[in-house]
Amino acid sequence: AWKGAPEITGEGGWSFKPRGRAQLDIASVNAPDSVGGNRLGTATEFRRIYLGVDGKIPGGFAYRVEADLANSAVELTDVYVTYSDGPASITVGQIKPFWSLEEMTSDLFTSFMERASFTSGFGFERRVGVSGAYNGKSLLVQGGVFSDNASDLLSDSNNSYSFDGRVVYFPKLGNTQLHLGGSAHYHDFNDGQSSVRYRARPFAHTTDLRLIDTGNIAAKGERGLGLEAAAMTGPFHASAEGFWQTALVSGAADPTFFGGYGEVGMMLTPGDSSGYKGGAFDRIKPSRLITKGGIGAIQLNARYDYLDLVDNGITGGTQNAYGLSLVWVPIDYVRFVANYGHIVYDNAAVPAGTDRSYSVDTLGMRAQIDF
Amino acid sequence: AWKGAPEITGEGGWSFKPRGRAQLDIASVNAPDSVGGNRLGTATEFRRIYLGVDGKIPGGFAYRVEADLANSAVELTDVYVTYSDGPASITVGQIKPFWSLEEMTSDLFTSFMERASFTSGFGFERRVGVSGAYNGKSLLVQGGVFSDNASDLLSDSNNSYSFDGRVVYFPKLGNTQLHLGGSAHYHDFNDGQSSVRYRARPFAHTTDLRLIDTGNIAAKGERGLGLEAAAMTGPFHASAEGFWQTALVSGAADPTFFGGYGEVGMMLTPGDSSGYKGGAFDRIKPSRLITKGGIGAIQLNARYDYLDLVDNGITGGTQNAYGLSLVWVPIDYVRFVANYGHIVYDNAAVPAGTDRSYSVDTLGMRAQIDF
Amino acid sequence: AWKGAPEITGEGGWSFKPRGRAQLDIASVNAPDSVGGNRLGTATEFRRIYLGVDGKIPGGFAYRVEADLANSAVELTDVYVTYSDGPASITVGQIKPFWSLEEMTSDLFTSFMERASFTSGFGFERRVGVSGAYNGKSLLVQGGVFSDNASDLLSDSNNSYSFDGRVVYFPKLGNTQLHLGGSAHYHDFNDGQSSVRYRARPFAHTTDLRLIDTGNIAAKGERGLGLEAAAMTGPFHASAEGFWQTALVSGAADPTFFGGYGEVGMMLTPGDSSGYKGGAFDRIKPSRLITKGGIGAIQLNARYDYLDLVDNGITGGTQNAYGLSLVWVPIDYVRFVANYGHIVYDNAAVPAGTDRSYSVDTLGMRAQIDF
Repeated sequence: AWKGAPEITGEGGWSFKPRGRAQLDIASVNAPDSVGGNRLGTATEFRRIYLGVDGKIPGGFAYRVEADLANSAVELTDVYVTYSDGPASITVGQIKPFWSLEEMTSDLFTSFMERASFTSGFGFERRVGVSGAYNGKSLLVQGGVFSDNASDLLSDSNNSYSFDGRVVYFPKLGNTQLHLGGSAHYHDFNDGQSSVRYRARPFAHTTDLRLIDTGNIAAKGERGLGLEAAAMTGPFHASAEGFWQTALVSGAADPTFFGGYGEVGMMLTPGDSSGYKGGAFDRIKPSRLITKGGIGAIQLNARYDYLDLVDNGITGGTQNAYGLSLVWVPIDYVRFVANYGHIVYDNAAVPAGTDRSYSVDTLGMRAQIDF
Repeated sequence: AWKGAPEITGEGGWSFKPRGRAQLDIASVNAPDSVGGNRLGTATEFRRIYLGVDGKIPGGFAYRVEADLANSAVELTDVYVTYSDGPASITVGQIKPFWSLEEMTSDLFTSFMERASFTSGFGFERRVGVSGAYNGKSLLVQGGVFSDNASDLLSDSNNSYSFDGRVVYFPKLGNTQLHLGGSAHYHDFNDGQSSVRYRARPFAHTTDLRLIDTGNIAAKGERGLGLEAAAMTGPFHASAEGFWQTALVSGAADPTFFGGYGEVGMMLTPGDSSGYKGGAFDRIKPSRLITKGGIGAIQLNARYDYLDLVDNGITGGTQNAYGLSLVWVPIDYVRFVANYGHIVYDNAAVPAGTDRSYSVDTLGMRAQIDF
Repeated sequence: AWKGAPEITGEGGWSFKPRGRAQLDIASVNAPDSVGGNRLGTATEFRRIYLGVDGKIPGGFAYRVEADLANSAVELTDVYVTYSDGPASITVGQIKPFWSLEEMTSDLFTSFMERASFTSGFGFERRVGVSGAYNGKSLLVQGGVFSDNASDLLSDSNNSYSFDGRVVYFPKLGNTQLHLGGSAHYHDFNDGQSSVRYRARPFAHTTDLRLIDTGNIAAKGERGLGLEAAAMTGPFHASAEGFWQTALVSGAADPTFFGGYGEVGMMLTPGDSSGYKGGAFDRIKPSRLITKGGIGAIQLNARYDYLDLVDNGITGGTQNAYGLSLVWVPIDYVRFVANYGHIVYDNAAVPAGTDRSYSVDTLGMRAQIDF
């Protein structure tokens, strides 16, 4: 089978497929002049460059080994072995600990160039652990115990652990695909770290400057709760999420921060629809390919994104972002995204002169291929 | 042919095969409370994540290019080109300089999660060089001249070199495979470094803490001598090695350190046997695969491992380790290992309070796939 | 199709091919004793170890993702997506900004182990950008706007940019292939950096010591102009280039440095010729392969290489190098190179005692495979 790259199969159930993706971004972040010096403005970067492999081994085993080379370094992404028996599976290795619809959707398929602010804001990352899943016809249950990201585990003294679980109910009602879910997370730092920091970039990843930022909060752990809802019908889709993240501090009230978003979108090209598979958005498959005289698939999306890093004496700032995006898939495995964001800040961690309330405009474009 | 991944062949003798492996470990090191702070205890890590390729080129050429990404970095492993003519071959590139049966056996196939303590204790590593080999029916002769590991060669002033040779006689007597060998090594640091350090982890790799450790010994080179013996018959195997490593110091007696091990093992599943090929242990091929209703191959191993880093005024400590391991190969290219070690220390470099004689228990588990 | 590695094709125009190369060098740099301590002398290194993939996607898209792992690190090399329509194409990603015949020729195919001194001396590198090309029957026009090398773009404040263009006319006159070209380059540092430095290694890459070196020149940009000429007929080829690089300084005269070379070469094996394709030298394809009783292709080359880093008060030194090289291609995708260089320095940045005029001899050998 051809899936961007050949999936080569052997007798008895063996298979092997190279995997990879390249995302090249250019983005402009326009803030008041006094913000960020020349760290903002127009910049370009490789957002992700993954290379890896997928394999299947007879008897129910499958594996993935992949790394991101975009930062001229090795960052291990999915590295795991799964054993499946029908809808049930056990996975050991590094994966995402079941955080939110937006996070569990591959970055290849998100509606905007960057995910909702709370996903990076609350430090969602891949972690090494052991987990189980039940992937039914309209029910997904995922749960596991995790240590830390592989690069953090290089430290001998990192003995942190987390419990993470997620449940999604995704019935199909006529032509409408529903998605209703929730996830819960408990993370004990257990000497692995003694503080936590929440912060978010301004709707673009080309800068590492975060305009809202709690700074380091002395903490011994953290707790997260998320709710997810989405619906897709014909060319339309809508989705919304909320996530409550609590820093577990010693001898003081625990601050809880909140982030969420609401999105609506539609395909502009007739016959196309959003992709969805087993608890996450999936690949858009254009019905009118450019190779057949068509224009591919075009999707228009609008989103309101919110992140509030102010609670119990922590004043990290609040971000209200209004975004529009245009996604163009001329042919399978090629994708272009353009998006605009208008972000309103209150109590920003980085002031404009002395003013901590201001707004920022962001324009970004991405070229992407994957295999 | 399928070898975990497809080996793709072209006309005239071309071939190409992706290569890789992933090993995920969890291990617990239980030492007296005062040892190592939170650097011991339970920890998990990717032990190895290799990605690479093997290729054959008509006319007698073959190559391998592979790197280990497990530490979120690039560590070049085997990177070489070989020219072969019948049993004779010449190799240029980075390989292992012919050190010991245990070291020359792929880490995919060793009986325990970690090799004998002396192999890492004496700093065995891959080095860039040119070497020749004669690989006969029951005789293997290997020899070469090497510079240093590729990452050490990044330094302009590294001009160290070594001569390394190994001879193995491996006749098959009836159903019994014998292995008798020896290797000799001379390493001149030649400005590349001015000291050498020998040390070993406590029967697990999840910690970087070494409880025995010579510290830096001012030296201008080192010399190594190893003896190897093994026998395999039916489900049984036994192996033993000894290695003498001498630090060549200026104006003082040269300290010589010794390490070795003895191992016995047996397959618990009928019809299975250890794998052996051309001078090293090889892949266990289960006769009753899980895909055919079997349980795969299970092997039980016991080992005594010894490392003595005390000589001529150097008191690095002595380690006597007693180990048990269980290896499970449910199907080719998938392997699980569990092992337990009880280690008795004398003159340990890291004291328990003021006591340098104590014992440590280690329990580890590995999940492994390769292709 | 087999191109060192299999190019796997799918229905409708999909294709996928692994890519890679390995170059292992040993070189000896013999300078007066007082130069460079033990940074010179004999040394070995992996010059390049690339791993990556090439792909084609129906509708006119193609991509390449590749990285160099030779320095035990990730250095992104070609990472791009191209859209082509007949002879016209648009490329986004990291490529070489159209600098010189020698630079645009793959390092797999250059006549000597290292390219002309001016190419590294003037800091030629790959950069991320968008460019267009017209690749006609005998005319190549390339032009684009670039930011910086991907690793430099990791800095938030790098907002440098360059405009780069190149035109090559390459008619075939009877059996003679001509190549006439020129390129122009303008690079505005725009806060990305505040100085520039030009320097060159002594005809070998195993050392990082540069004997000529301008040191840091305070500058706000740089400008480059190059001329290219080459001719190939039967077993013979000749090529010559000149490049003028100007550092754009503030409030002072701009120093302009010059580098160039002239080369002649011939195939010693009957029936063989240099490879050339669309504006650059290409793969030598031996007519008498070693697999058919032949010796492969052997090429002898002689070169004069010049680099002058002295102008307008900057005294970085001058280098006149005389080189001989022998290239042996026993079979496609395998290549051995040996080269000798005699280099005469004036005003060298690294003195021999107090003498800045001296000569250096270099001998190097390379083993190379690619796929």
